[in-house]
Amino acid sequence: MPKRVGRYVIELPNRPAVISWGTAVGKTESEGPLHKEFDICYQTDKICSGTWEQCESKLAIDAVNKALIKAGKTYEDTDLIFAGDLLNQCVASAFSVKSTDIPFAGLFGACSTMALGLALGGISVDSGASNLTIAAASSHFCSAERQFRFPLEYGGQRTPTAQRTVTGAGAALITPKGETMPKLHAVMIGRIRDLGITDANNMGAAMAPAAACTVIDFLRDTGKKPQDFDMILTGDLGLVGSKLLLELLQKRENTDISAVHQDCGNLIFDIEKQDVHAGGSGCGCSAAVVCSLILKQLMRKELNNVLFVGTGALMSPTTSQQGSNIPGIAHAVWLTSGE
Amino acid sequence: MPKRVGRYVIELPNRPAVISWGTAVGKTESEGPLHKEFDICYQTDKICSGTWEQCESKLAIDAVNKALIKAGKTYEDTDLIFAGDLLNQCVASAFSVKSTDIPFAGLFGACSTMALGLALGGISVDSGASNLTIAAASSHFCSAERQFRFPLEYGGQRTPTAQRTVTGAGAALITPKGETMPKLHAVMIGRIRDLGITDANNMGAAMAPAAACTVIDFLRDTGKKPQDFDMILTGDLGLVGSKLLLELLQKRENTDISAVHQDCGNLIFDIEKQDVHAGGSGCGCSAAVVCSLILKQLMRKELNNVLFVGTGALMSPTTSQQGSNIPGIAHAVWLTSGE
Repeated sequence: MPKRVGRYVIELPNRPAVISWGTAVGKTESEGPLHKEFDICYQTDKICSGTWEQCESKLAIDAVNKALIKAGKTYEDTDLIFAGDLLNQCVASAFSVKSTDIPFAGLFGACSTMALGLALGGISVDSGASNLTIAAASSHFCSAERQFRFPLEYGGQRTPTAQRTVTGAGAALITPKGETMPKLHAVMIGRIRDLGITDANNMGAAMAPAAACTVIDFLRDTGKKPQDFDMILTGDLGLVGSKLLLELLQKRENTDISAVHQDCGNLIFDIEKQDVHAGGSGCGCSAAVVCSLILKQLMRKELNNVLFVGTGALMSPTTSQQGSNIPGIAHAVWLTSGE
Repeated sequence: MPKRVGRYVIELPNRPAVISWGTAVGKTESEGPLHKEFDICYQTDKICSGTWEQCESKLAIDAVNKALIKAGKTYEDTDLIFAGDLLNQCVASAFSVKSTDIPFAGLFGACSTMALGLALGGISVDSGASNLTIAAASSHFCSAERQFRFPLEYGGQRTPTAQRTVTGAGAALITPKGETMPKLHAVMIGRIRDLGITDANNMGAAMAPAAACTVIDFLRDTGKKPQDFDMILTGDLGLVGSKLLLELLQKRENTDISAVHQDCGNLIFDIEKQDVHAGGSGCGCSAAVVCSLILKQLMRKELNNVLFVGTGALMSPTTSQQGSNIPGIAHAVWLTSGE
C-alpha cells in the first residue's frame, strides 16, 4: 500500500514491476544513436496514410501493442491505461486507446506525461486498484509543429534554443509482481515552478526550475544523495535546460548531480550531427527513451537505481500569445532493478 | 485499500470522505435554478480584468479556495490536486494551480474530468498515497466558444442540439476520514465508445453511448439495480443526450433508469426559460452541480446513494475538421451519505 515518505514522495512498498515495454519512432529518431534500442523504427514520419494526428495515434498504439505482445498479454487482460500527449484535447491518446477498449484515464502533463503515467500507474497497481496497467505517451514532430509553431509548409526557421519534438511513443506495462524485472520504488507528483520564462522557443529554460525543485524535494524526502543513483534522468530539458538545471542545483542548493545526470532530450539524438538544435522534446521523447534504453539497462542490471524526472512546460499557444509566462512541472519516478 | 469488484469497478473500502467543496459560476449560471447552491455567483462572465482564459483560471482557484476555507485547510495542508479543463493543454488548471504550490496531476477527460478527478483522488486517498486531496474542474463559455466554435464577436448561431458550456468551476476535498460527510464508495474508469457521431454541435449524442456502457458495467459489477440508487446523475448529456441514454439502456439493455436519472446539464439551467438550447456542458458543469447541490443533499442525507457518471467527448476542433468521429467516455463515482 502506497506510503508517504517526507512531504512529497510516495513510496510503493509492494514494488510494482514494469514487466514489459514498447516503443515506436519516426525517421529522425531512427537515424539517432538509440535506433537499435527501439522496437519499431519507421523510416518516414508519414507513418500511416492519414493526417499527422493519425500518424501520432498509430505510433501510440504501436508502442502499446509491442509492450503487450512481448509480455504475452492482451487488451482484455489490461485493467487501465494512463495516457496523454501534447495535442489539443489529448486526441492522439484518445484515438489510439479507442480501439483497445481498455479503461482510459487521460493525462495532461505536457512532456512530463510519461513520468505522470508511471507515477499514477504505480500508485494504482501498488494499492490494488488495478492489476495490469499501462502508462503511455506519444508525440509527433509534424503534428506538434503545426499546433505549437508553424505548419511545416511554412518552412519556418527554428532558434538555437528550440528543441525538436520527438516523433515517437513509449508504453510500459505495470503489474503487482515480476521478480527479475525493473521495479517502481517510489514516485512523486511535482509542483509547478514559474521563473518568468516567456520564450516558447526555450522550453528547456522554462522546465529546468521545476526539475531542480523536484530533484531537491525527492533527495530531501528520501534522505538520498545524488551518488545513490546510477542515473538522474531528466526528460526532456535538452542542452540548454540541462545546463541550467546543473547550475540551479549547484548555485542555489549546493547539490552537484553532474556525475549522474543524463537527459532524454540529449540521449535520443546525436545533437552534433543531427539538425535538432537543443535536443529532443515532446511527450514521446522521455517515453521512448525510458521504454527502451533505460528499462533494458535496468533489466540487465547495468543500471540499478534510476531517478527519472519527467519535465513538462504547461503553456499553450494561446497563453504564449497572451504574453503569459511558461510554467514548468516535473514528476519523479524512482526505478530500481529487479531482485 | 482499493479492491476490484467484478471487471471494472474499484471499491474503496476505507470510504474516503468528501469533507468540503466549493463552486464559482458566471452570469447565466447565477440566473439559473441552482444559484442559491453555489458559493460564488459572479454577475458577469468577465470575472477578472484579463483574458477569458484567465477568467476561467480565476473561477477554478475560487472554487479551490472556497473548499479549503470551509474545511479550515490551506494549500500547505494539501498533498495533491487532480485538475483539468477543456482548454488546449489544460492551461486553465495549470495557471490556477500554479499559485497554490500543491503537487499537480493534470487530467484530460473533457466534460468527464470531475468524475475522473474524484475517481483518481479517491483511489489515492483510500490507498494512503495522499491525505488531503483535491479534485477540481472548470470551464468558461467564452474561452470554450472561441476555442471550439467561433469567437463571440462573430455572433454565430447555435444549433438546437448544441449545449452551452458552463462558466463555472467546482472543487472537492477528499480525506481518509470524515464521519458524517459524504463518502466515495466505489469508482470506475470508463472505456471509450464511438457510435459514429460526427456532429460537434451534438455532444449529447456522442457521449450517451459511453454513459450507457458505464452504467451497465457498473450495475453488473456491483450487482445493483437502478432503484438501489436515489439518483443516477449523468454529467452532462443535456436534453438530447439524456433522451438517447434512456433509449439506449431501455432498448439495448432492457434497463430502465428513468425513475432515478438526472443530468447536470439539465439541472444547472432552466432550459425552458434560459437561452441554453440543449442544456449545459463543459468540465465546469458537473463540477459545479456535484460540488453544490449533490454533495449538500448527501450531507443532509436527502440523498444516500448517488451514482455520478461524468461524461466527456474526446474530440478536438482538428479531429472534427478532419472528419473524425467524436468518441465519448464516462467515468463513474458512487457517492454515499455519511454514517
